[in-house]
Amino acid sequence: MKWPEKVTIKEVGPRDGLQNEKVIIPTESKIEWIDQLSDTGLSYIEATSFVHPKWIPQLSDASLVAKGIRRNPTITYAALVPNERGLEAALEGKIDEISVFMSSSETHNLKNINKSISDTLPILKKVIQAAANSGKSVRGYVSTVFGCPYEGEVTMDQVFRVCDQLFDYGISEVSLGDTIGVASPKQVASFLEGAVKRYDSERIALHFHDTRGMALANVLQALEHGVVTFDSSLGGLGGCPYAPGASGNVATDDLVHMLHNMGIQTGINQDKLIKAASTMQTFLEKPLPSHQMAVYNAQ
Amino acid sequence: MKWPEKVTIKEVGPRDGLQNEKVIIPTESKIEWIDQLSDTGLSYIEATSFVHPKWIPQLSDASLVAKGIRRNPTITYAALVPNERGLEAALEGKIDEISVFMSSSETHNLKNINKSISDTLPILKKVIQAAANSGKSVRGYVSTVFGCPYEGEVTMDQVFRVCDQLFDYGISEVSLGDTIGVASPKQVASFLEGAVKRYDSERIALHFHDTRGMALANVLQALEHGVVTFDSSLGGLGGCPYAPGASGNVATDDLVHMLHNMGIQTGINQDKLIKAASTMQTFLEKPLPSHQMAVYNAQ
Repeated sequence: MKWPEKVTIKEVGPRDGLQNEKVIIPTESKIEWIDQLSDTGLSYIEATSFVHPKWIPQLSDASLVAKGIRRNPTITYAALVPNERGLEAALEGKIDEISVFMSSSETHNLKNINKSISDTLPILKKVIQAAANSGKSVRGYVSTVFGCPYEGEVTMDQVFRVCDQLFDYGISEVSLGDTIGVASPKQVASFLEGAVKRYDSERIALHFHDTRGMALANVLQALEHGVVTFDSSLGGLGGCPYAPGASGNVATDDLVHMLHNMGIQTGINQDKLIKAASTMQTFLEKPLPSHQMAVYNAQ
Repeated sequence: MKWPEKVTIKEVGPRDGLQNEKVIIPTESKIEWIDQLSDTGLSYIEATSFVHPKWIPQLSDASLVAKGIRRNPTITYAALVPNERGLEAALEGKIDEISVFMSSSETHNLKNINKSISDTLPILKKVIQAAANSGKSVRGYVSTVFGCPYEGEVTMDQVFRVCDQLFDYGISEVSLGDTIGVASPKQVASFLEGAVKRYDSERIALHFHDTRGMALANVLQALEHGVVTFDSSLGGLGGCPYAPGASGNVATDDLVHMLHNMGIQTGINQDKLIKAASTMQTFLEKPLPSHQMAVYNAQ
């Protein structure tokens, strides 16, 4: 089989999407939207981020969102945490899975987290182990895997060094981020040839941004290398922090559309997805940039 | 080799792109733009269409454009013609290559050309043979290859029947159009498995529309099946006539960007391409929808 029968999509819109939207969405609207997402058939929703409100004002209501959303017991509700304080708040909010994050390139890590990679790793180690002690699985986001906005090329060794450490600390899955959307299908293919030999492909997720329009082509390559887990953001919510107006996360609706048209199951209902995207358009008072929403909005 | 070393891109923006733009571009601006395209390294430009002005007012200046543009002798300047009258005008305009067009689905052909497929074929036969008698090669566009807006599914047999006829009449290449942008990579793969057995892959071009965001993923599949010729429209000019606001032809700049990032040569200079797209943005007084132009416009 060239392509898998089934793919898992992890919806990161409420976190990665919303954190890049300037218009502050009221807490009750976020809750309404996440509740709608819970009815689409998604099995995984990253609901918010427990970072300091100063960093991301949009997600300063993380605890209220975590406590306010209706829980579907078949869905994993995850949240991003930067440190042990964030972890405590996430645990208090009864989050199912914890995400930690860092970059594979030194400069991006420094600019994004204000620490070197070697200073970040021990902090994440503590979070991962504390989460494990509380019975929570941890997902590790590794950014700038296919290129860094400051350093340019990032070597596979740099990426593997960080992933090795995070797996060693106990993460259950790594989400490899093409943070600035520069990966080409060839780069994805050659990276994954190495990565799936080093790690179980079931423990690798890919987190593509569509800045240059290559995200779905990259998904296709990843599928051919045995990766079956992808992050995406409904409607392409959030855009690109490095190029306002350009595309951000690959859109969940575009990804699901392509996969279903290839006969690959996701468990997600496309109509309900479009309805949820339409709700967010109403909240933001602007069209979302995905291809499916452009077609929907034209009707 | 999974991917080829070199790909030929056929720029259809001045015809397929412009014919879907409402704002009428003055003839001298079109000429200025095509002259700019001639400096980008493109080897093939479909410059205009000699259809009746009533059908496509935007291209009613076909003869003036054909006569006004600066000819780079290394570039093939093509034009679309619907019948022998169009061919005469194209020959008078010293067009290098003639394009004819029809659909693989009966209803789309009827709505688009106002004739049945069986009534269209003899007309195209005459055009193709007359063009050959004048020493011109002919390219055949076949529309709705991967789906019809009226009939839905189109069978491979329907497509092959039309292509067989056109090759039999003497076309040098068929351009297989995903007119409404519904093809999935799986569909492209299974179609091409049959098509490259039936026809020389050097005589097959693919003409993807990006309505659902799958065009570059489809290009990737086509490359893996040995197809090395693709139509595209600079900046994604033109949009989608079936869903205003949705994407139209795959954007030349997005296609070239992906190919170059995969180490595949096109002979095209990306900076010059962006400059030419920027010129068209000025003429249309609106941003073009390609990913590269979104990034460019954000800078």
